[in-house]
Amino acid sequence: MFPEIHLRLPDWVGSFCEEWSAPFVEIDDRAQFVIELARANVARGTGGPFAAAIFDYERKTLVAPGVNLVLSASCSAAHAEVVAIMIAQQIMGTHDLGAEGIPMLELVSSTEPCAMCMGALPWSGVPRLVCSARGEDAIAIGFDEGAKPQQWQHELEQRGIAVARDVCREEATAVLRDYAQGGGLIYNGRSRNS
Amino acid sequence: MFPEIHLRLPDWVGSFCEEWSAPFVEIDDRAQFVIELARANVARGTGGPFAAAIFDYERKTLVAPGVNLVLSASCSAAHAEVVAIMIAQQIMGTHDLGAEGIPMLELVSSTEPCAMCMGALPWSGVPRLVCSARGEDAIAIGFDEGAKPQQWQHELEQRGIAVARDVCREEATAVLRDYAQGGGLIYNGRSRNS
Repeated sequence: MFPEIHLRLPDWVGSFCEEWSAPFVEIDDRAQFVIELARANVARGTGGPFAAAIFDYERKTLVAPGVNLVLSASCSAAHAEVVAIMIAQQIMGTHDLGAEGIPMLELVSSTEPCAMCMGALPWSGVPRLVCSARGEDAIAIGFDEGAKPQQWQHELEQRGIAVARDVCREEATAVLRDYAQGGGLIYNGRSRNS
Repeated sequence: MFPEIHLRLPDWVGSFCEEWSAPFVEIDDRAQFVIELARANVARGTGGPFAAAIFDYERKTLVAPGVNLVLSASCSAAHAEVVAIMIAQQIMGTHDLGAEGIPMLELVSSTEPCAMCMGALPWSGVPRLVCSARGEDAIAIGFDEGAKPQQWQHELEQRGIAVARDVCREEATAVLRDYAQGGGLIYNGRSRNS
């Protein structure tokens, strides 16, 4: 009577991950992977210039990549962070990625989370967040980040989530800029200026 | 290589909707439907005490119901509002429920949106929001609403979303209270107090 929701990563993401030979040891390594994933999402025409991934922080391994599927899946909530979280939760078999028995996980995002993704983080249970481009870098090319509390980092930290910002910010911002200059669609729903 | 995400409403929701004979003409009619959907989600054991639905505001018809699937789908983002929005977007074939050619839609929620769902609203394009219980009513039974801006209603209105609050608040709060008194799981991920 009502349709089901199916979200799947584009076909190229699997081989992109398999072919990535660089290590994930340093925080910059993990950020670079996510930034290149965002760039590939634009190049392949499968979505916006945003990517994220969840890593096993102890083993330094990739658990779940995420790319923005808003346009391809007709799903406004399918931001890269939400997709990565959902996939990791399927893999772990629980809605709580901070539960006992789950390895320490880290969400790395090519751009700071918008209001929705920021709100999604505490619910997900993920205890670590790493961001590359700033929210203002996304706003600079026309995306609306939504109504985030000014002290959003503090709000996450109060909920036990460690936050690192500006990790490879330059490289991540270049992906956003290239997307805008290439005529990429700025697919806000209702923005403050619309 | 990575699992797909499948979200589906519990089987009983279809017949619940078919058997609902009351009209959706008045705002209270629509709120009552959503409150009873939340109550049924608890009674059937398929999730938390939260429901939502998207209505065609002109025709006064149901477009897409949503119930909280966090536990049943192992998916922390599957709050009732997000589920209803995702289903409506599948039905309409677009990520933007405010796009030209889409009827005027209204999201009715049994409890005010948490930080994530508030952030999801502008992206969804839905131009109207109706809420029954207040965020503080959910907090009173132990749920964390997350870091919402104090002026969240104003923030939504600034983005062209009309907001009505406290519609059948008493009835909706009773569902929350009954859930807590019945020993229902309060499944916060990382809350301010954890």
